[in-house]
Amino acid sequence: MSRFRSSRFAGLTAYVPGEQPRDRRYIKLNTNESPYPPPEGVLEAVAAAAKGLNLYCDPTALRLRESAAEVYGVTPEMVLPVNGSDEILNFAFMAFCDGNTPVAYPETSYGFYPVLADLHGIKKREIPLNEDFSIDPRDYFDLRCTVVIANPNAPTGIALGLDEVERIVASNTENVVIIDEAYVDFGAESAVGLTRRYDNLLVTRTFSKSHSLAGARLGFGIACPELIADLTAIKDSTNPYNVNAMTQMAGVAALRDNGYYMENCRRVAQTREDTLKSLRALGFEATASKSNFLFVRHPEISGGELYERLRERGILVRHFSKEPIADYNRITVGAPEEMEALIKAAGEILGRISLKHRSPRDSPEKGIRKQPQILRRKKEKKIQPG
Amino acid sequence: MSRFRSSRFAGLTAYVPGEQPRDRRYIKLNTNESPYPPPEGVLEAVAAAAKGLNLYCDPTALRLRESAAEVYGVTPEMVLPVNGSDEILNFAFMAFCDGNTPVAYPETSYGFYPVLADLHGIKKREIPLNEDFSIDPRDYFDLRCTVVIANPNAPTGIALGLDEVERIVASNTENVVIIDEAYVDFGAESAVGLTRRYDNLLVTRTFSKSHSLAGARLGFGIACPELIADLTAIKDSTNPYNVNAMTQMAGVAALRDNGYYMENCRRVAQTREDTLKSLRALGFEATASKSNFLFVRHPEISGGELYERLRERGILVRHFSKEPIADYNRITVGAPEEMEALIKAAGEILGRISLKHRSPRDSPEKGIRKQPQILRRKKEKKIQPG
Repeated sequence: MSRFRSSRFAGLTAYVPGEQPRDRRYIKLNTNESPYPPPEGVLEAVAAAAKGLNLYCDPTALRLRESAAEVYGVTPEMVLPVNGSDEILNFAFMAFCDGNTPVAYPETSYGFYPVLADLHGIKKREIPLNEDFSIDPRDYFDLRCTVVIANPNAPTGIALGLDEVERIVASNTENVVIIDEAYVDFGAESAVGLTRRYDNLLVTRTFSKSHSLAGARLGFGIACPELIADLTAIKDSTNPYNVNAMTQMAGVAALRDNGYYMENCRRVAQTREDTLKSLRALGFEATASKSNFLFVRHPEISGGELYERLRERGILVRHFSKEPIADYNRITVGAPEEMEALIKAAGEILGRISLKHRSPRDSPEKGIRKQPQILRRKKEKKIQPG
Repeated sequence: MSRFRSSRFAGLTAYVPGEQPRDRRYIKLNTNESPYPPPEGVLEAVAAAAKGLNLYCDPTALRLRESAAEVYGVTPEMVLPVNGSDEILNFAFMAFCDGNTPVAYPETSYGFYPVLADLHGIKKREIPLNEDFSIDPRDYFDLRCTVVIANPNAPTGIALGLDEVERIVASNTENVVIIDEAYVDFGAESAVGLTRRYDNLLVTRTFSKSHSLAGARLGFGIACPELIADLTAIKDSTNPYNVNAMTQMAGVAALRDNGYYMENCRRVAQTREDTLKSLRALGFEATASKSNFLFVRHPEISGGELYERLRERGILVRHFSKEPIADYNRITVGAPEEMEALIKAAGEILGRISLKHRSPRDSPEKGIRKQPQILRRKKEKKIQPG
């Protein structure tokens, strides 16, 4: 920190993205990317855009808004394309929260929400999950806060039904409700249709997961024209040309081919269910994820240790070392062969542990012999409400 | 505006980018783009990056920082790549200005500075230019504000010498001085070297003008590691993956080929001087621009009218309808053939006017006959200090 940094950012804790180590090749199951590369149409659109990069991109991203509007059944005035969906969240926190309007979100959710709130000096209301990690919609009724809910939630993968989302939106008519649908295409119900009926609903989307464009940075805000006008005013006051020309055209091409991506999402959902079956056979417990990741724990190994043992075997998953989820790992659903490698590695790790449990005298490693005790303590902790 | 917008943004006036009309083909001399398309190496780098777009880009943009550090003679810790240089300005206004630290900049300069100040509720100190539109460095000594100076300045194109910049930086040791070098490669002296000696200097760069990448969105902040750490903390708290994978790789490729772009900049500077000679022969007055644009007026036609007449002829230039520059137009230096078309059109427009002045009875248009009076009034106004 320099001596010039504004004192309001003195204690700033930035979001820490999933690691991208370069020391060796990993099977990357830690940042919820799609295992399927972008199709030829996207590559061609990018190549065509690249030839004209000496000219500015369209700051209104009109063609992209038109394409997205058609696919999502709204009008172009209801769509704001952004440089990844983190950007629309940032704009929305700025536009719709302040000293009078706090932000409310599930205590266990996307780690970027508290970062944005702290950055902008917004009061936070963090609402615990149910013991089973589900969200109780009633906790979000009439909150007098701007409400943010990831649906499906991260890192649990558990989704609210559309009727539950609508009840939350309908009960907060004096505040904006943001439904973050980063993972919706993998099996949950979208609230985009509700934006035509509720002037307080903002749905955010990303093409990072479902549309194989994580590296292109493309997200959307979808809402009534007035909310989009507010967000566009913030955009035009911070970065008018926020979405580059290549990404705009990649987005148009991807939307033209939306069926291809929806088929990919179905494949990912199938791989998720297959993987879940195999992990359960190994003794793993898991949430009912509707996302492109699994959220699992195993009674015989701590979350942190499983993460480490997988990493040693060249498999990266994501572990959050905080309660009530420290026992868990979030595992991206990759290609079937990647998941087979994961299952094999998990089996080996657990096999070694259970071998050691059976004949403790053969195992000189204290850490592992102590494992069962550590786990009992953690399980007790977990019983505390989320 | 929706009923949910935070009251602190009620009066938000966003920056208005140069128009991008689609009604016909224009010779675009209004947004200071390069007339030279990106070379093959950039196209190949983009195509390679596109194939892996399903994976996230490197949030630390390490390779790009290394490449930029090498070209600019600094270390990678002194470079922050951004999604266009507007983004680094936004981060810097956030990090280094607040209720205690206002921002100071020339009254006539890049129109985005007051927009950012207003957005973040930062007090503005707008310092008039000299009558000849130059900046008096002494006006910026010991200001106790965060100082922002575009060098060369926009839209005048007039540059400060490196010694003058250094005196400003050295006299404001308790505050950050931002030198916005968007146009520096066209003939001014860069202050990048000073970042190794002054911990209060932030130099901002863009690849939109000099490096034919306006559509890719790529800018840089260059400063001592502590200032870059402050800006990176803001970046990681708003948009950790701010520069997409294609642009990162386009930037690496462009930096590898930096000599090509520097040669393009010399060509643009030559075209600028050639165009200036022709425009002066037509009676235009101009500032001593060191940028990729000319800033001109003509005693026989108002700035607004010249803009309109050129537009009718399919040539877009930029006119700012505010004092003390309303008489002027900013004309991007394009390819030589584009500038020939501009000179021809300007000649025709002026020829028609002077024809009408010579034989007023042949001209039924009242507006044009009144022109000389209008101009006298504007010239008087112009004498007021900037």
